[in-house]
Amino acid sequence: MTEQKATNVTWHTHAVSKEDRWNLNGHKGAVVWFTGLSGCGKSTIANAVDFKLHQRGKHTFVLDGDNIRLGLNKNLTFSAEDRTENIRRIGEVGKLFASAGCITLTAFVSPYRSDRDKVREIIPAGEFVEVFVNASLETCEKRDPKGLYKKARAGEIKNFTGISDPYEAPINPELVLDSDNKNIDQLADEVIAYLEKHGIITA
Amino acid sequence: MTEQKATNVTWHTHAVSKEDRWNLNGHKGAVVWFTGLSGCGKSTIANAVDFKLHQRGKHTFVLDGDNIRLGLNKNLTFSAEDRTENIRRIGEVGKLFASAGCITLTAFVSPYRSDRDKVREIIPAGEFVEVFVNASLETCEKRDPKGLYKKARAGEIKNFTGISDPYEAPINPELVLDSDNKNIDQLADEVIAYLEKHGIITA
Repeated sequence: MTEQKATNVTWHTHAVSKEDRWNLNGHKGAVVWFTGLSGCGKSTIANAVDFKLHQRGKHTFVLDGDNIRLGLNKNLTFSAEDRTENIRRIGEVGKLFASAGCITLTAFVSPYRSDRDKVREIIPAGEFVEVFVNASLETCEKRDPKGLYKKARAGEIKNFTGISDPYEAPINPELVLDSDNKNIDQLADEVIAYLEKHGIITA
Repeated sequence: MTEQKATNVTWHTHAVSKEDRWNLNGHKGAVVWFTGLSGCGKSTIANAVDFKLHQRGKHTFVLDGDNIRLGLNKNLTFSAEDRTENIRRIGEVGKLFASAGCITLTAFVSPYRSDRDKVREIIPAGEFVEVFVNASLETCEKRDPKGLYKKARAGEIKNFTGISDPYEAPINPELVLDSDNKNIDQLADEVIAYLEKHGIITA
């Protein structure tokens, strides 16, 4: 018995490294961080990239309001402090997913530059891909898929990004998508082309 | 231009389902939740299972103090409230990993039954595997790999599980591992046998 206890303690862990997990998947992990106004197309583009990559056998996952705000971050409000904590947690989870070998697509307005920059800081170089989904406020408000702009204009939603709260566009993002003038298929393909060009996936 | 904007809005998402992701990986996702006293072997067993499954081409990931307490949960203390929040967040992240197709191995003391039961509640049936790593306090204290028991006995650590804070053993866990009398290889194989028997992986 004593022998076995000793074995217990001294068992040498053959740790699985990040690279081992990436090799198993056949591609690198990354956090593809979509940012932009409500209605700019973040979620739709993220899901289109997810679908196209999955069809090609890549390991992907989407983090968005549906699975984060109702789960991990359900104890956060929309106060300035909690918005920062919201983005911080999503960044940390994205980092874990990337080291597990997933191409993780996050779709959050994430309006503040400092919050996004903090995420960039914690994620290893080359694994963070900031994608600015650029659509004019006019376009987003015209689309208004969830009727949120209407409510914000009516004063029913306070601190609404683009109306009563600022959106700070990225200064030097990895990718800018022209969501005013291109369709979802085109934009998703631009993201995938970026991932190929930078060796996260092979062409 | 107007046409393209319309396309933008009406693009039908071919959503990737949890089952799609599981099919790609060739196995189901799950959260294998190791619980037990400090020094009982949770982390070592989790890493051994991780290594063995990875060698077999399974998609796995370990959540433990190293990657959680220094990242996602670095803003939590060891107060009762924060311990509960610690476990809640880990549960939510495990749930996401499982739906991404990962066999997620979590290694935390998680001493309170109600905290673990809340995790069980949020994870779909069959995807939560509670593993009680059963080692006597005597065994754990004799091993004391991090010198924590010594510090707790000296009063340098307050609220230390097993010494000055209770450990509530699971009443009906999926698996109990006899860490007093079996070695790491045996215990890891018991976990893998469970996953095979319950169809999470194929034999």
